Formats: sequence, C-alpha cells, structure tokens
Amino acid sequence: MAIAVERIVGPFLQGGLVVTTDKPARCPKSMMVREAGHPLPDYRGQKAAHEILQLVDSLTAQDLILFVLSGGASSLLSAPSPGLTLQNKRETTRALLRCGATIREINIVRKHMSAIKGGRLAAATPATIYALILSDVPGDDLSTIGSGPTAPDPTTYEEAFAILRRYRIWTALPRAVRHHFQRGLAGTIPETPKPNTPIFRRVHNCIIGNNVQAASAISRQARRLGYRSLILTSQLTGEAKEVGKVLGSIGKDIDRIGRPISRPACIILGGEPTVTVHGSGKGGRAQEVVLGAALAIASQRKLWVAGLGTDGRDGPTDVAGAVANDRFVAQCRAKGLDPHRLLAMHASYACFQAVGGHIRTGPTGTNVNDVYLILAP
Amino acid sequence: MAIAVERIVGPFLQGGLVVTTDKPARCPKSMMVREAGHPLPDYRGQKAAHEILQLVDSLTAQDLILFVLSGGASSLLSAPSPGLTLQNKRETTRALLRCGATIREINIVRKHMSAIKGGRLAAATPATIYALILSDVPGDDLSTIGSGPTAPDPTTYEEAFAILRRYRIWTALPRAVRHHFQRGLAGTIPETPKPNTPIFRRVHNCIIGNNVQAASAISRQARRLGYRSLILTSQLTGEAKEVGKVLGSIGKDIDRIGRPISRPACIILGGEPTVTVHGSGKGGRAQEVVLGAALAIASQRKLWVAGLGTDGRDGPTDVAGAVANDRFVAQCRAKGLDPHRLLAMHASYACFQAVGGHIRTGPTGTNVNDVYLILAP
Repeated sequence: MAIAVERIVGPFLQGGLVVTTDKPARCPKSMMVREAGHPLPDYRGQKAAHEILQLVDSLTAQDLILFVLSGGASSLLSAPSPGLTLQNKRETTRALLRCGATIREINIVRKHMSAIKGGRLAAATPATIYALILSDVPGDDLSTIGSGPTAPDPTTYEEAFAILRRYRIWTALPRAVRHHFQRGLAGTIPETPKPNTPIFRRVHNCIIGNNVQAASAISRQARRLGYRSLILTSQLTGEAKEVGKVLGSIGKDIDRIGRPISRPACIILGGEPTVTVHGSGKGGRAQEVVLGAALAIASQRKLWVAGLGTDGRDGPTDVAGAVANDRFVAQCRAKGLDPHRLLAMHASYACFQAVGGHIRTGPTGTNVNDVYLILAP
Repeated sequence: MAIAVERIVGPFLQGGLVVTTDKPARCPKSMMVREAGHPLPDYRGQKAAHEILQLVDSLTAQDLILFVLSGGASSLLSAPSPGLTLQNKRETTRALLRCGATIREINIVRKHMSAIKGGRLAAATPATIYALILSDVPGDDLSTIGSGPTAPDPTTYEEAFAILRRYRIWTALPRAVRHHFQRGLAGTIPETPKPNTPIFRRVHNCIIGNNVQAASAISRQARRLGYRSLILTSQLTGEAKEVGKVLGSIGKDIDRIGRPISRPACIILGGEPTVTVHGSGKGGRAQEVVLGAALAIASQRKLWVAGLGTDGRDGPTDVAGAVANDRFVAQCRAKGLDPHRLLAMHASYACFQAVGGHIRTGPTGTNVNDVYLILAP
C-alpha cells in the first residue's frame, strides 16, 4: 500500500512512516520503515507508534495525512495508555486469546488500553486525514480494522470491563491494568472519541479493498469463463472442517436438484472460518475446509472445492490454500493416508502434499480474508 | 402411510402388517400392527420381520406387494442372518455407533448381518413389489433408506469387513459375528442381491416424499407470501452449532451486499446436521443450529432463523424446533441466561423456553429430515 501511495502521489509527499512485519520483501524509497511484532505486539511496535503520534502531533490543520491501514495493525501499532506498559497489554491480550474471547471483544479491551487505537490517532492531530483501508474484518467495521486508529469508537470502558469480567480474567490481571480500567470507569481518564464528535468532520475513512470485492472479482471471472456464479456470503465463519461439510452439502445438490444453481456452476463464499486446534498437525483453515468438503463430495462426480487465504498464507504453512475434487479422498487412501484421521488431527497439509492440490501464490502483501469456491464445470 | 394405503386401495387389500414404534397414535383397521424397538432393535422387531418374511414367502408371482417404507425401518425390522442372534447385531450396532461410524457405514455392516435388509426382502418373494418410500436419507439412496429391504445392494462383505477393521472393533466383536463375516468373505453364504439381477425386474422402488419436496413446498409458500426464495441444499450436514454460524454468515450479507438474494428473502436449507454431545443439557440439533445462528446475527436487524425436524421432534425434546431473530441473544441475556455457554453445554432448549421461540407441531408421522430457514422480511 505504501509503495502504491509513493508511486501515485510521491511528488506531493513530505514524508512517511511505514510499520510492517519482519523483513518486508519491498519497501518504499521515500519513507521510513519500521518492523514490529505480530501477532503479539513488541517494543519495536511501541516505538513506531510513538513516532507516528509525534509526527501527527507536529502537523497543523492545513496538513493532509494519507493513512493507509490494513489488518494486523492492532499488534503492529502499540501505544499503551499512560500508566500502562506493553507487558501489561501483552498479558491482557494473551489472557483474552486463551479464554476464547472473540476478536471483537479483544479489540474492545485493547482500544481502551491504547493511546493510538479506537480513534485516538485521529484525536492526536489537527490535520485532515484520509484513511485508505484494506479490510480483513468480515462486515468491514471501521472501528475493528486494525482497532480503528482513525475511526470513532462506540465502545466504552464499561464494555471492556464487562468482557474482562465475563471471561473471569479480571482478578488475574496486573494491578496497573485493573487500576487503569477503574479510572476509566470513574471517568478520570478520557474515553475514546465517540461517533458524531467534531474530530471526525476532518477524518475520511474509505474502504479501498475487502472480501466482497475479491468475491465479486471471482464471480466476474467465472462468468467470463462461462460459469453461472453465485456469491453466498463474504462473512463465512465456523469451525473449518464443519464449514467444509456445509460446502460439500451445497455442492452435492448441484447435480441432483440443480440448486442453488445448475452446471456450469461457480459458488463463491468469502470470510474466515476458524480452527480450534487440538493436535500438533500441519495445516491451515482453508486446507481444512477443502479437505472437509472433499470428504463430503467423495461420492459425487466432477465437483471441485477450493479455498485460499488472500494473503497467500494459510495458517502456519507455506501455501495459500488448496483445491480438491470428488476423487481426492480415494487418491489419499491410495497413497495410504486416512484423510478423516488427518483432518481430525489438523494435519490436512499432508494430504495435499501427497496427492497434489496445494495452491501456492507466495505472499500477496494484502489480506481480505479467505475465498472459497464450489465448482461444478 | 399404512392408513393412507388403507384409505386409497383398502377394498383391494388381502391383508397387511405394520411395524411401528411404541404406541402409535392411530392404526389402520384392516392390518395387523406390531410395535418394535427403535433406535436399537429388539426381539419384537425380530418377530415382526420373520412374520413379514413368512408372509411374502407365501405369495406367488401373481401377487402384488405394496411395501410402504420410511426411515427407522433399519431398527424396526430386524432379522439376523442364520447363525446370528439379535444380541450379536445389537452389540455390533452399538460398537459402530460408539466409534463414530457414519450411518452409511453402519448400514453396510447391518445389511450383511440381515435376512431382510439389503434387498433380501425382495429376494424372499416371487411377488411383484411396489415400494413407496419416504426418504429420511440425504440424497435418497434407496439402498440406505431403512437399509433398503427392496433395493439392490451394491455393497459387499468385503466392504463391511473393511469398516469393522477401520474402526478397530473387529477383534472385540462376538465370535459368531466374526465367523459370519469370514463365511461371507469366503463366499460360503450368499451375498445381498446386486443391481441388474433378475429379481429387480419385478421390484419398483418409488420415492414418494423427501427433503427436496419439503424444501420446494416451503419455497412455493414463501413466494406466495411475497418473498424471494432460494434453496441452497437438501443435504445439509455438519456440527449443528457450526452450521448455525454458516447460516448466520449467509444471513448477514443479505442487507450488506444483497447476496445471495436481497430482501424480502427466504433462504432454505434441508438436511440433517449432527450434534456431538459432550454435556447433559437438553436440546436438539435444530435448536442448536438456530441458537448458533442467533449468536451470529445478534448485531443485525430484522433477520430471522428457524429450523425444525419434519417429524415434529428435535432430539430428545418435546418440540419440533425453534425460531429466533437478531434480538434473541439480548433477550436471553436480559433473562440472565448465557446463550454461548448454554450452546456449548448442548442446553439450547433453556434459551427458547425462557425467551420463546420453540416450534411445536406434535409428531407429524413422517420424517424427511430437517428444514432450516433464513428470513429477511
């Protein structure tokens, strides 16, 4: 995104600061680049966040900020509220991840422990902000993407406190964290900037890429190739292997009753299924969805299921995703593999490695969640 | 079904025998009625099966049998192969249920331990057979519905044996069972009748009701009421609460991107999700799907999800299913209930009992699986 900004409006830029994960493949030439920790924030991210806050604080109402934001910023930009340490935030985040809080809930808490999230970046400068946002959040909620540094935050200290209580981690939190939330509840430290406050008259948040666009592009390409196409959702959630069964269920009726559309059919779903890991196998959510679907369609004919992460990386593997057809399960068994068992062990990678079907794109540099296809040519 | 046959062709009937579960609400007047065990077969079912086999054996090629069959017959009609006892079959069925075998796999084994299933009823008579079949099997596979007493059986002793080995229960089976399968593998006892054998020239298997018909009827009624309607599948499978999330995912994009159809929308799915029970809570698969979906759509507006068993009974409860909307979860919380926790405990019933939303039809007398609706009026 930064490289694209440099290419398009480079001559007008007075400076720039990029915060990214370790070892970016390419960097913009005219901007400072900072690497920082992800998915757990680190001190490098904290330093970068303070640099950004100083930079925007030095601007005037005549200045214009182009703020390009994509998923992952929640951990890359870490500026603990006064009185809190990064360690406090990390411990709180870890406790929330462990107890099964949703990403939305985790972000509500994080936004109320931050000097940059929940709209506080926008509040820290008098400049006009154009935020160009790539959404990795199903539904594109501005206050959730990267914890919404430039978005109004409708959530409150009360809600954050309720989440910490609901998951029963409140009493286990560091004293400084509890003290911070108690001050928030008492109103002695400022809330995040709320919708309809004057700050947001000079802030323009634009979604420039999301899962709907990816799904629509696939749909257009499918039609160009002669398929009927149908987008079912861009907000797919659920345990990956069970989502796979549902995809299989839908695929199976294309021939039998011509529903939801008849051949040649391309059914598209976007979103982000989850994997609750029990074993230590190698795999990713897209590979699990595809293997789950492959098991469901094993008795069909000429039916394909594919899935991939748009960032080019499916879980902790070197592939973007996978594709399988109605013969895939038989091919696994012919290689001596038990796909049921491997799926249960979260070791889907091995099946595609043995039979073929891995999709390799390399890192794409952007993330608009996953896309899944049911294909009946 | 028997009462309908009696009403329509009563004067032509020479006799009839009905095997049903305990205490049927109504009985045909001109037929013998036998009650038998379900879902585990018992000696009453064994006696009834032998009565049926004797009855059809006494007929000639000039006779016509109307064989009305619905789901559940697998356990209601139990005729162990010569050399096996009902206890042998029960133990084998129980072992298969416990180890997570699919219903298809269980039926392959059962058919090869039976004197009536897997087409053996058809093989036991010279009469012409019209089998009128109500399907509770996604995809309507004739050899699976009620284990297919009148359907050709493509499966073999080899396959049954492979299943018993795959789930590692072979060595734990009673000696008589292992002996039986060894004889089957050796070819010293007859296989089930296979497709394209002369027997099936005088056997006519007709599906007279299935999930597709139920879904289509709902679709027609929805259109009559002014909705756009879309049937996604009639073969829905997957863990109920995860299936609920997928239904919620689909519902959420109706407003946002008008996919897969725009308001007023009625999206229909048929099938039979499963519940892997961990707790001891009260609930059923349809109630779990609906509660899972309700949690996913809690931040939407004017969105409804409903699901019910077409037999009028959702799991071990007194209701057919449930309906919930985007406000349901908030209403649960207002009553002091934690719907997330109750769903995890498989105690969905309590939520609908407290807030409302149970669908009560009473027993319908037929089962064509479940139907699920996503409604955006």
